[in-house]
Amino acid sequence: MSDRKEFRDLATPEAAREAIDSLDLSPEPETVPLEEARGRVLAERVDAAVDVPGFDRASMDGYAVRAEDTFGADEADPAELDLAGAVHAGAAPQVTVAPGACAEISTGAVMPEGADAVVMVERTDEIGGGPDAGSDPDRIAIRTAVAPGDHVMSAGADIAAGARALGPGTRLTPREIGLLSALGVDEVPVEGRPRVGIVSTGDELVRPGEALDPSRGEIYDVNSTTIAAGVEEAGGEPVLYPHAGDDYEEMERLLRRAADECDLVLSSGSTSASAVDVIYRVIEERGELLLHGVAVKPGKPMLVGCLDRGGSEAASGGDADARTGESAYVGLPGYPVSALTIFRTFVAPAVREAAGRAEPATATVEGRMAVGERYGEGRTRLMPVGLLDLNDGDLPLVYPVDKGSGATTSLVEADGVVTVEPDTEYLDEGERVSVQLFSPDVRPPSLLGVGEDDPALNRLLDRLENPRYLPVGSREGLRRLRDGVPDAVVIAGPTDREVESIDLGGWTRDWGLVVPAGNPADVTGLDAVVDRDLRFVNRPTDSGLRRSLDDALDRLAAERSTSRAELTEGIAGYDLTVRAFESPARRVIAGDADVGVGLRETAKRLDCGFVSLGEQSVVVRAAPERADRDAVRELAAALDDPADLLEGLAGYSRNSRNDP
Amino acid sequence: MSDRKEFRDLATPEAAREAIDSLDLSPEPETVPLEEARGRVLAERVDAAVDVPGFDRASMDGYAVRAEDTFGADEADPAELDLAGAVHAGAAPQVTVAPGACAEISTGAVMPEGADAVVMVERTDEIGGGPDAGSDPDRIAIRTAVAPGDHVMSAGADIAAGARALGPGTRLTPREIGLLSALGVDEVPVEGRPRVGIVSTGDELVRPGEALDPSRGEIYDVNSTTIAAGVEEAGGEPVLYPHAGDDYEEMERLLRRAADECDLVLSSGSTSASAVDVIYRVIEERGELLLHGVAVKPGKPMLVGCLDRGGSEAASGGDADARTGESAYVGLPGYPVSALTIFRTFVAPAVREAAGRAEPATATVEGRMAVGERYGEGRTRLMPVGLLDLNDGDLPLVYPVDKGSGATTSLVEADGVVTVEPDTEYLDEGERVSVQLFSPDVRPPSLLGVGEDDPALNRLLDRLENPRYLPVGSREGLRRLRDGVPDAVVIAGPTDREVESIDLGGWTRDWGLVVPAGNPADVTGLDAVVDRDLRFVNRPTDSGLRRSLDDALDRLAAERSTSRAELTEGIAGYDLTVRAFESPARRVIAGDADVGVGLRETAKRLDCGFVSLGEQSVVVRAAPERADRDAVRELAAALDDPADLLEGLAGYSRNSRNDP
Repeated sequence: MSDRKEFRDLATPEAAREAIDSLDLSPEPETVPLEEARGRVLAERVDAAVDVPGFDRASMDGYAVRAEDTFGADEADPAELDLAGAVHAGAAPQVTVAPGACAEISTGAVMPEGADAVVMVERTDEIGGGPDAGSDPDRIAIRTAVAPGDHVMSAGADIAAGARALGPGTRLTPREIGLLSALGVDEVPVEGRPRVGIVSTGDELVRPGEALDPSRGEIYDVNSTTIAAGVEEAGGEPVLYPHAGDDYEEMERLLRRAADECDLVLSSGSTSASAVDVIYRVIEERGELLLHGVAVKPGKPMLVGCLDRGGSEAASGGDADARTGESAYVGLPGYPVSALTIFRTFVAPAVREAAGRAEPATATVEGRMAVGERYGEGRTRLMPVGLLDLNDGDLPLVYPVDKGSGATTSLVEADGVVTVEPDTEYLDEGERVSVQLFSPDVRPPSLLGVGEDDPALNRLLDRLENPRYLPVGSREGLRRLRDGVPDAVVIAGPTDREVESIDLGGWTRDWGLVVPAGNPADVTGLDAVVDRDLRFVNRPTDSGLRRSLDDALDRLAAERSTSRAELTEGIAGYDLTVRAFESPARRVIAGDADVGVGLRETAKRLDCGFVSLGEQSVVVRAAPERADRDAVRELAAALDDPADLLEGLAGYSRNSRNDP
Repeated sequence: MSDRKEFRDLATPEAAREAIDSLDLSPEPETVPLEEARGRVLAERVDAAVDVPGFDRASMDGYAVRAEDTFGADEADPAELDLAGAVHAGAAPQVTVAPGACAEISTGAVMPEGADAVVMVERTDEIGGGPDAGSDPDRIAIRTAVAPGDHVMSAGADIAAGARALGPGTRLTPREIGLLSALGVDEVPVEGRPRVGIVSTGDELVRPGEALDPSRGEIYDVNSTTIAAGVEEAGGEPVLYPHAGDDYEEMERLLRRAADECDLVLSSGSTSASAVDVIYRVIEERGELLLHGVAVKPGKPMLVGCLDRGGSEAASGGDADARTGESAYVGLPGYPVSALTIFRTFVAPAVREAAGRAEPATATVEGRMAVGERYGEGRTRLMPVGLLDLNDGDLPLVYPVDKGSGATTSLVEADGVVTVEPDTEYLDEGERVSVQLFSPDVRPPSLLGVGEDDPALNRLLDRLENPRYLPVGSREGLRRLRDGVPDAVVIAGPTDREVESIDLGGWTRDWGLVVPAGNPADVTGLDAVVDRDLRFVNRPTDSGLRRSLDDALDRLAAERSTSRAELTEGIAGYDLTVRAFESPARRVIAGDADVGVGLRETAKRLDCGFVSLGEQSVVVRAAPERADRDAVRELAAALDDPADLLEGLAGYSRNSRNDP
């Protein structure tokens, strides 16, 4: 076992924040075309270079007049003026308004010389001419008096040349784009987007889309893409570097290249001590390590430092793009939820700051703890939590999600993190907490369901607006419903837990034994599994499939006047449980087992053989106090006509509860 | 005057919404690479195609063991196992763990055959070997018992093949990108972005960046870029079509081309009746008009309909991209604030819906009316309002912004609109209202200032975080401060209004007469303006510059034993007032005036001549009840050392208040 660096003297989270703040990630400002400026941040003040409007402008359709010619005019005694001509928008006036005259004018047109007000067309009449006379009118009756400037927008009245239009730091949304357009600006000085290089280390990582060899322990690289998306969201420009693999010279070369090309370099995914050693060495040789280890869970192995530039071939080769000085460096933990949590908490604010962006208002949500939570490790905890907004006027419910840091599914089963201070030992049920969302765009679910996994259920969930479903099995689902967090539970087969709940409907599914295509071992029923030397694969005890299997074994044991335990002892693989409804079938297909517990539907879909052991009801039940929620009603409505939910699913039928 | 279509039988806003909802803007779903998927919306469910992890995986560094070999082991009585080899992450195990043996294993590595649990390294000791022995250890002492599965993540335990990973309609944020990566997905089925064609009509419109001829009444096209940015923000893909100008055949051709190429066509900016006639004709010939005129202010002249496809040359020419069926059509009002308001209220929700996106949580903000507002026109009003969050625990203040619909500056002086129902005649001060922001990214200001405009003030504002400043003049500024909405006022010169306020600091500026470079008319003082036949240009009565000018005229009148009115009667242009501090100078430069009131700084910057008439103080004052706000303290702090505020500004100095 190689030597491992120990993390002693952990820094406080505040010190980590200060260390990152002390690094300079700021890119140079740049100029972008107006049509690409949305979402960017103004780097400097923009003053109006022109008057808007650029001329005295009619703001109504009507007649341009000298106001004094209308003084005293009213409905009873209109002023009559000679019609001297017309002015239209987008054309230079070809007419001058002399005393006693007027000119037809359209909204937006230039006020003709001599005129100082507009009378709206509704307060005028044509005299002479017109369709009947077969000619244009030559005089206009003005039935109202106007003052100089009436219905005229004078040049610069909207914004005048020299006036401050937009200040530095302004985020450019459609309306600012509009004002810049009005000023004729088509190139905008904006804050640069910090370039953030992402170097991932670890021999086992494979880029999504490439072939994976699980027998070599390969997994897809989650952190690079997740963090790249986070960088982009914070206003940075992510640059993914190719995998360094376990070639440490290559890793060093990559780190230096990334430092030369970027404002900030992030590495993550290194579970290998030797990779960490390389990073140390590079930083120690050409850079500075500011911080090593932070008293925060997760994220203890975080590194903060900087890397001198000029170390890469690109730079020494005279690449014009190469920068000087130093690049900031942060090493993130390897597990995806930890990496995203540390990125969101410590790195994203620095990227946003460098890009000139404010923290989005939606990035933090207030909530109340749905359950109590004990903690006492003496360091700050960034606790992953899920949110459920009951829309009952109270704060959303917050519940801890703890699947172990290695689970990528925590990414979508949690919505963000709650910071638990080191001296907090217990969070009470109902206590108010702030949740830092994983992204300002995270939309917490409107419905939380738990329980059995099932293919018809997957379709049902597709019909709902933003549900979250945790496939924890029927038994665990009932336990969670009883504990009060979820809205609904899905139960397959018989249950022994009594939890008060309201039946919303369901269906029936054919379950039994999945065998290879053609049933080569000629399995005919449970006897074969018990009596013959077949490799079996099971579901966990929380699963309804397992419960039905055990009930069937109980019946067989009773027939044979023995116990279930006696029977199962002889089943090779009875204790080998796999995660989801298709998993046993897939083990059978892979040749790792001869028989698995499963569904007729799965066997058909995956082209396996199937031996039915019976039908099992799947029911959806709601927590009584949640039955009136819109989201639960929507669930009930989606269940009301389950026909096409079940269409084409082998062995599925409406259960008796739903039949008329 | 041409015939104008009258808007009779206006539709209700609900009917307008229904008409737009009845149109089909939905594009086909598409597939995008994972790295471009952020912000998009899943078009269909994604099930896991592989187990994650794809193998039984060590979740700690330590030793892979057969759990039963550790039963009974503890600190006092460790189990000793033969070390059979090592397994590292990213490598296939080359070792089998037989009874009584173990294998070194790294986090993330594949569990070797035979082993079913991991003992963490901290609970083990090496026996024999090591640095001292000069060889590898051959046995390991295990100081704890483990159960099967301990520190092992079994294949599929995170998510199993066949399980539902993400549902349709899921917005892809970094965490979803992470889960998709874990599943090896590199191409993602997402909802398409509706293509929205923007056709702008109006002879007077010029694209930003092009040359403008104000004498022809040309203005920059604000709506096309504003609406394009709004479309993009709502998840659509904007397509700007070239200006049709007043060539109506061209306009018809463009509308048809846009219909062929887009899911929705928007037109705006048409203040010309004949342009509206062309749109009618095109819709009537090849399409359907659903709605014409809506009882809403602004936005009455809104049109909703659809345009048959296949009318453009591109389509008849067999363009592969041409679509069939029909395109939706909405005609927006011409004024920028009206166009953005109608877009935001009626069109953006439809674009979002077609793109599969939810309304962002930040798009609506609750507030309380800062002042009462009367309204009684019997139709829905979408009232532009500004927001000011006092951060006092109460809702943000909401105040109406009504500069007239033609003003583009309303775009940035208002933050959104409040919907006032037709039967609401009065909104009380303090009444709670919902503000629909112009964009979810709109950040209401943290400070609201009003008053005089001034170049040093512009610099001061640049130092503040997100201020809003309304240059309404000193006198109007004081009136507004008294009415209780703004935080601070900036006053230049003497004032006659008494408003309780707190002095925060200020400076002094040299003011006088701006004349052409070289002072060709040899103006030496105010006498020249009064006595000679010079064309003058003034500032409005609310301006501090005007007030100082009038005071100087009063003094001159007293010297001459006459009245100011008597003197000003002889000044050609005394009543010609222009908007901003630079505006008179710019009129002088343009040759439209011989003398203007203004600042030495402006004269110097614009290379004009200048005749000083005196010094004028500029003071910044806060509303007493706002003095403790963070934003006001920030303002006071920025004023505390005004030295470099004034650096390089001609005629500027610290005023006596600030001198020690």
